[in-house]
Amino acid sequence: MSRQGILTVVSGFSGAGKGTLMKALLAGYGDYALSISATTRSPREGEVDGKDYFFVSTERFLDMISGEQLIEYAQYQDKYYGTPKEYVDRMLSEGRDVILEIEVQGAAKVRARYPEALLLFVTPPSAEELERRLKNRGTETAEQIAGRMSRAAEEAKYMPAYDYIIMNDKLDDCVKQLHSVIQNAKQSTSRCGAFMSRISNELQDLLKEEN
Amino acid sequence: MSRQGILTVVSGFSGAGKGTLMKALLAGYGDYALSISATTRSPREGEVDGKDYFFVSTERFLDMISGEQLIEYAQYQDKYYGTPKEYVDRMLSEGRDVILEIEVQGAAKVRARYPEALLLFVTPPSAEELERRLKNRGTETAEQIAGRMSRAAEEAKYMPAYDYIIMNDKLDDCVKQLHSVIQNAKQSTSRCGAFMSRISNELQDLLKEEN
Repeated sequence: MSRQGILTVVSGFSGAGKGTLMKALLAGYGDYALSISATTRSPREGEVDGKDYFFVSTERFLDMISGEQLIEYAQYQDKYYGTPKEYVDRMLSEGRDVILEIEVQGAAKVRARYPEALLLFVTPPSAEELERRLKNRGTETAEQIAGRMSRAAEEAKYMPAYDYIIMNDKLDDCVKQLHSVIQNAKQSTSRCGAFMSRISNELQDLLKEEN
Repeated sequence: MSRQGILTVVSGFSGAGKGTLMKALLAGYGDYALSISATTRSPREGEVDGKDYFFVSTERFLDMISGEQLIEYAQYQDKYYGTPKEYVDRMLSEGRDVILEIEVQGAAKVRARYPEALLLFVTPPSAEELERRLKNRGTETAEQIAGRMSRAAEEAKYMPAYDYIIMNDKLDDCVKQLHSVIQNAKQSTSRCGAFMSRISNELQDLLKEEN
């Protein structure tokens, strides 16, 4: 009903499968624009600059902060992560639905600047499953995994600030649910003000014609 | 995630196609329980007592009011309509999703008694389309149709009090959307308190084990 796209924030525990989920969403449902974050961390194996992230120097990142070119930014393990504003605003104004995959700290900042944003939190069905996935990934030391579990316990406290819990048990079901939660959000009355005004006015006009 | 069923209130303009929509939802998705209203109005052609409505005398209806056996009731064109409470509560406690098709006046009363209820408003895409459908139904006089259009103009004022607008353009699409809006609502954080507590506790327990 609305012409403006919907801004969706996707957060979740590290190891919940957000990355895979985002890829499946974009592959299966072509209309989403995935915001690309800027970061000062090093690329992981296979990550491409300008596709997975904009990998920038700390100096450049600090310039983006002072130039107010970021919707939000956060520091995590001595590295900066941030969301360039221009791309998001342009996509939304063109009616594209934009996905931001960001940390819990950033999500609250996005909501403050975009009150209509939809906040989704991705989680596996249990903590045991989260730990199992982190171990199976096989890319991190036991110590790093323990750090991620510790961080997950902190992140869990932010869950109630989100709009929906997206349970990532089976990937296909999860992608479908993610898509339908986003599309249905467009039908919430808080986002249908223009339609409600139009049909109310039409009804009044028809009544006047008949009297 | 929750064991309790979800209570969904469906309202909408007379002529928006609520009845057809409800039939298609129940036929296509077997798990819903449709609450049957009690009413003092006369049955229309083809309506069956105990299936479409409980058709009761005014005396009996007033007894149900005084006996607090109704979740809500309203008067419309000198007739009473109300929702028997016992059936709704039993279905919800059995984990069934319950649909109440009721007038705008009743919806606010349901929300007051069941704050977790999901409120949906069904509408055709335009006022012209609403009038066209009422005329095509061919069951009412021009005067009655004008009365319904006048009432629709009043009902439109209640739309913002609902959670979602369900646009009934093509029936099949509309049924799918109705179903997915209801099922997705179960994933809203306001309805996932039990899950959020559980996974938070599990994460804390795993951390304790490791320390």
